[in-house]
Amino acid sequence: MMSEEKMRVNHKTLEAFVSALFAYAGMSEADAAFHARALVQTNLWGVDSHGVLRVPVYVERLRSGAMNPRPETRIIRGAGALEVMHGDDGPGFIVGRDAMNRAMELAEAHSLGAVGVIHSNHFGAAGIYARLAADGDMIGIAMTNVIPNIVAPGGGKPVTGNNPLAIAVPTFSEFPFVLDMSLSKVAGGKLLLAKKRGEKIPLDWATDAEGRPTEDPEEAFDGFLLPMGGYKGLGLSYVVDILSGLITGGVFGDDIKSMYRHRDEPSLTCHFMIAIDPLKLMDKAEMEKRMASFYERVKTSPMWDESKEMYLPGEIEYLTALRRRERGIPISQNLYDELTALGEEMGTGVSLGDL
Amino acid sequence: MMSEEKMRVNHKTLEAFVSALFAYAGMSEADAAFHARALVQTNLWGVDSHGVLRVPVYVERLRSGAMNPRPETRIIRGAGALEVMHGDDGPGFIVGRDAMNRAMELAEAHSLGAVGVIHSNHFGAAGIYARLAADGDMIGIAMTNVIPNIVAPGGGKPVTGNNPLAIAVPTFSEFPFVLDMSLSKVAGGKLLLAKKRGEKIPLDWATDAEGRPTEDPEEAFDGFLLPMGGYKGLGLSYVVDILSGLITGGVFGDDIKSMYRHRDEPSLTCHFMIAIDPLKLMDKAEMEKRMASFYERVKTSPMWDESKEMYLPGEIEYLTALRRRERGIPISQNLYDELTALGEEMGTGVSLGDL
Repeated sequence: MMSEEKMRVNHKTLEAFVSALFAYAGMSEADAAFHARALVQTNLWGVDSHGVLRVPVYVERLRSGAMNPRPETRIIRGAGALEVMHGDDGPGFIVGRDAMNRAMELAEAHSLGAVGVIHSNHFGAAGIYARLAADGDMIGIAMTNVIPNIVAPGGGKPVTGNNPLAIAVPTFSEFPFVLDMSLSKVAGGKLLLAKKRGEKIPLDWATDAEGRPTEDPEEAFDGFLLPMGGYKGLGLSYVVDILSGLITGGVFGDDIKSMYRHRDEPSLTCHFMIAIDPLKLMDKAEMEKRMASFYERVKTSPMWDESKEMYLPGEIEYLTALRRRERGIPISQNLYDELTALGEEMGTGVSLGDL
Repeated sequence: MMSEEKMRVNHKTLEAFVSALFAYAGMSEADAAFHARALVQTNLWGVDSHGVLRVPVYVERLRSGAMNPRPETRIIRGAGALEVMHGDDGPGFIVGRDAMNRAMELAEAHSLGAVGVIHSNHFGAAGIYARLAADGDMIGIAMTNVIPNIVAPGGGKPVTGNNPLAIAVPTFSEFPFVLDMSLSKVAGGKLLLAKKRGEKIPLDWATDAEGRPTEDPEEAFDGFLLPMGGYKGLGLSYVVDILSGLITGGVFGDDIKSMYRHRDEPSLTCHFMIAIDPLKLMDKAEMEKRMASFYERVKTSPMWDESKEMYLPGEIEYLTALRRRERGIPISQNLYDELTALGEEMGTGVSLGDL
């Protein structure tokens, strides 16, 4: 153990451990391995809120039947470069992967492709799917609707979710360009942190339970989030819901179910994946040169605060992953104990290691 | 004259007047009419910053040859549902129209289509082109790069533009869903207003000339804008530049030219237009019903401030246009005089009316 608060686990050990849990919960070996790798990869990027922290609820939902461990994803409508996939209530990670892979097939044929998805579940970090496209030399756009948690300015009740949106662009160098964000001003975790520290929060972060902007993180924690950029982020959240849930024939707004509050039910989550093949417009060498030129201009731009560095979207995740691959992934004692107990209860026989 | 400060001009009179100016500056009758209609329509929506206020600079650029009054827009690369259009340095309104029309043709064939555009110019409100798609029962996404005017947090120099982005969705009812925004936290006009009123501005609006956040609108006016939602809006601005200028083979970052600072030169502005045909996924009646359900939920959502109403994206523009069609479009005495003088100098023989 490296510290009382956070332990560090080797990423390969963690991946094998989580993969075994998913396989024992009914998933195929291949899908379990993909799901585990995607979660651990998310931790490697430093996005711990969407990494292995979620394993217990995913396993619980697989075991209860809320999530179908062996979904048969299938195209149910569409034509040309636009289709809708039925996710068969499978894990969002598996359905999301299948949908982006299909969007890339469509883009192979049509130069761009889009696949809407219905009957999926929580898919973790949207960046996973956008990066799948970038790994295949395409631009990927991935988005999902979530249960309403954002309140419109003046509104008393959430009208839309903080619907995550990720965009990845291949650079043909060390790391892809990746923008991966939710559409709330801040994530719930920031409210928790301010609450713990006893700090005030800015008025544009969150509201109390009645929708009134608040500076008190305690109140905010019982309230709702505010959209990033006010009406702009609110409008973008609507767009994500319309593309994912509305035009696909899926659910939108408050018809989506919370994976926490409705543990035994499919969440009916919807996604929308777009793949664009830039190599239909120029060859790889030219695209690589142009992205390098773009990056060069940003990276060499002067800082007034010279102690700071200008990071590119995806760069911090890349650097964090380099570090964590070497030093291990920090997880809390609580989570370590919870995962270990789950492994023992399920009898997977795979250990997180004696730390 | 209805007031000393703002006069009101009938929208049809204004359209005929502006159309004549453009035709006298060398544009074809049809293109001049489209350009004038789009500008006046922008005023009708209440977006006066992107309406006829810009006529003098557009006319100047047409007459100087910086903008080609009779562009022959043509597809220069691409395949399937993704193409790049060369705008022949024509007015952004004409090139943008041609590009979205082409994207819709591609979407007709492939269910979705995208057209990148190089060698265009300032295209006004991005909403114009997104709405063209919605008028044709498609979802339209329109974006453009602009000269860098946004500074990254900590940066001393703009690294990207506040690259406007608009998304329109057909509702098959009174008005389409339209989100039309730039990616800065606020528009420059808000700084001007605060300066006039002697008010402080929030620290997340703008910076001084060195990139340091400022509360002083005077300093901000000589400085740069900050992105909406911090790093999120910054990343989105990069994405717009990559899609519009980078993958198309056009210009990006500081290779774009300002239409004000480089009056005699083509600005080389690039756009990206996407059209998605939702009627390939469901019939019009179902789409109409689902959009109505979406709207109903938002509109009936409770407000904690009961004096306020929940507006849908595009609703305020719709209501403003109803009012302005009846009462006329407010323009300043200065602009009225400038336009009138321009008409007299060019000898169009069309009058703005004796107000």
